[in-house]
Amino acid sequence: MPDDFDPTIFKPGQLLARGVCRHLLTHDFVSVEELTPERGLRVDVMALGRKQEVWVVECKSSRADFQSDHKWQNYLPYCDRFFWAVDEDFPVELLPEETGLIIADAYDAEIVRMSPETKLAAPRRKVMVAKFARHAALRAHAARDPGITSFSL
Amino acid sequence: MPDDFDPTIFKPGQLLARGVCRHLLTHDFVSVEELTPERGLRVDVMALGRKQEVWVVECKSSRADFQSDHKWQNYLPYCDRFFWAVDEDFPVELLPEETGLIIADAYDAEIVRMSPETKLAAPRRKVMVAKFARHAALRAHAARDPGITSFSL
Repeated sequence: MPDDFDPTIFKPGQLLARGVCRHLLTHDFVSVEELTPERGLRVDVMALGRKQEVWVVECKSSRADFQSDHKWQNYLPYCDRFFWAVDEDFPVELLPEETGLIIADAYDAEIVRMSPETKLAAPRRKVMVAKFARHAALRAHAARDPGITSFSL
Repeated sequence: MPDDFDPTIFKPGQLLARGVCRHLLTHDFVSVEELTPERGLRVDVMALGRKQEVWVVECKSSRADFQSDHKWQNYLPYCDRFFWAVDEDFPVELLPEETGLIIADAYDAEIVRMSPETKLAAPRRKVMVAKFARHAALRAHAARDPGITSFSL
């Protein structure tokens, strides 16, 4: 069913991101992976809703992966809602309660705890939607024309 | 040089769009193809600049292709600048003077006449950037995960 999908070429966090992005479509959110909101920060998944809502999802494949992340609070100013995505065996009691929680595998995911909302100010939202647009367009462009010189956002 | 590019699988207009999108990168514009600004309209190329400028490029492979296009003026309300892209053999005297002109092939392009600017109102710009973002993200998503169910914007 998952055509020629080869999970061995993905890192564990990328497998979670794959399921997360699929699931977010069912909430009418489109997603990109590995977006840089500012120099030195890179979010695993950034999603954009119909009303320009911005969600960030950090994908953690293990306790060690979570505990080594000292940057996640820096992502909060760039989104309306923040989620963790973990697999079903992850010790979810480690995760801060005031964040959203998504249980994922490579094929799908489910939001099991909605994140509280902290609305972006309008100017920041405008900047983030534009960053999202440029990031997504470059990825789509590279996919349809691998001959383009890659350049960063 | 153009790796495994096979021009025979593209329509003539798509070959022009390919060169156009490459060239627009050098102006720091990212591009998507075949975006629907509203039901019944589909632009060949929509490009987005650093300051959220929106450009539309219609790609015409022949005189007949141009003369059968009765919709192009409907695209003007969705962009700051409007361009035609044609190949070097196209009879450019057919094209309206108050539009931009790009000479293109499948590998590159050049803006030979800048379009006059008719600035979008802020609310329309916001809508177009969001449409661009969703369109681009869905295309990028389908490229990295062909297993997603396709759905239209």
